[in-house]
Amino acid sequence: MTYTVRSEQRAFGGVQGFYEHSSDVCAGPMKFGVYLPPNARDVPALYFLAGLTCTEETFAIKANAQRFAAKHGIALITPDTSPRSARFDGDDKDWDFGQGAGFYLDATQEPWSGAYRMGSYVTQELPALIERAFPVSSVRGIFGHSMGGHGALSIALKNPTLYRSVSAFAPICAPSQVPWGEKVFSRYLRQRDEWSAYDTVELLATHKHPGTLLVDQGTSDKFLRDQLRPELLEAACKKSGQSLQLRMREGYDHSYYFIQSFVEEHLAHHAAALRA
Amino acid sequence: MTYTVRSEQRAFGGVQGFYEHSSDVCAGPMKFGVYLPPNARDVPALYFLAGLTCTEETFAIKANAQRFAAKHGIALITPDTSPRSARFDGDDKDWDFGQGAGFYLDATQEPWSGAYRMGSYVTQELPALIERAFPVSSVRGIFGHSMGGHGALSIALKNPTLYRSVSAFAPICAPSQVPWGEKVFSRYLRQRDEWSAYDTVELLATHKHPGTLLVDQGTSDKFLRDQLRPELLEAACKKSGQSLQLRMREGYDHSYYFIQSFVEEHLAHHAAALRA
Repeated sequence: MTYTVRSEQRAFGGVQGFYEHSSDVCAGPMKFGVYLPPNARDVPALYFLAGLTCTEETFAIKANAQRFAAKHGIALITPDTSPRSARFDGDDKDWDFGQGAGFYLDATQEPWSGAYRMGSYVTQELPALIERAFPVSSVRGIFGHSMGGHGALSIALKNPTLYRSVSAFAPICAPSQVPWGEKVFSRYLRQRDEWSAYDTVELLATHKHPGTLLVDQGTSDKFLRDQLRPELLEAACKKSGQSLQLRMREGYDHSYYFIQSFVEEHLAHHAAALRA
Repeated sequence: MTYTVRSEQRAFGGVQGFYEHSSDVCAGPMKFGVYLPPNARDVPALYFLAGLTCTEETFAIKANAQRFAAKHGIALITPDTSPRSARFDGDDKDWDFGQGAGFYLDATQEPWSGAYRMGSYVTQELPALIERAFPVSSVRGIFGHSMGGHGALSIALKNPTLYRSVSAFAPICAPSQVPWGEKVFSRYLRQRDEWSAYDTVELLATHKHPGTLLVDQGTSDKFLRDQLRPELLEAACKKSGQSLQLRMREGYDHSYYFIQSFVEEHLAHHAAALRA
């Protein structure tokens, strides 16, 4: 349970660091980012799961969430989006499958099952390291963008006691019903009946989070109609009684300019639960 | 005086755009960024001059200044850091000379004099385009980072009526006395006596800005002692009576994490002058 420091830089009175460790679950070295607020001691941890093609650096560089993590006294943890070391045929052929597209699930189909286990990685192996090696408590929140929005919502629904708060930017709400999800689920997973465990809309039939799902979605997002489908999330929450705050943001797209614009409100949402 | 739109994205209720136009001064196409705050109409323009190796995108992506430009009702203009189209022998050999290292001066030595005229570009040609084509007034402020901090300070001192406000992050204060400046001045400029016009510390002997020079500098900046030399700026301002607010920031380095951490205060400094 060791890690190496790749870089540490002061930001907003705290420290933005990038680290690497040897992951059992992902069968090789994995990189991650940690932002610690000023004078961090036993602070809550807010995990951000990034979208397709992103790395542990993307959110840390582009979202400017450190400003508000510093203000609220919360650590930000940014895992990478897939294994990078174990390599399999075809893992870099598409931008939406394989490298950079781990989808926060545990693959059961070979060869992917040998390393593509981001579900266990972000919920178990990485938090165990973080909570032992950094001045971070076991109080956790989770949020994410696009593929990472799918990850955050589905993980929080399945682990409502582990994650006190959850939110998402432009999440893939029903991966089993859209091209991105169909493509990866049919390759990472052996059987169709395994899909439900990674589909927020399907999970809502049997799972509930005690908090409110906070979701922002841009109306000019080019993936809105075919891949993201927030209307299915809204219907599922209504049916199951899950509290949801879905905000359609006029004219915003799928980029980090959209995330920057609303990240302050997401940090406030998490802080209210994590610092309670 | 036309331009083409490369992209436009909503951010903080305004629009972050990237554009391209044909520059006479730089002898070819030049790219630039414009952030317009919400409901922009005749708003002041704040020019940001970036550092070595950066482009028109760097500050727009990494500094998160749009948040405060939106709040204060100020446009942010981000030029590129050098000509990119005209090419000369050796312009891509070093990271600190040629491409990405225009140093905001008008070269007088051939071949560089054929295109490396960023001084006239950022003070004349680009503002003329901006003030005609965008809902921006002729009220201007200027700031920058490192090489761009040198640019902002020297340009404001020489044009105190054109730029109402000025600030810098980790500026090269006395380029004539440090390796970066000696390297580029001796190649871009024909004679040693031309250097003074682009050296903030030398300019302070004969020029004054009516505002306060706001300067932030990290104490852990690896370029502090050999290239930046804020102590020379401090001495020159003291001698000439130029108002200076120099803040040494404990533990901060030369990166955009440093810029992010203090950009809110810089925008407030400019807004106080530009919106007065």
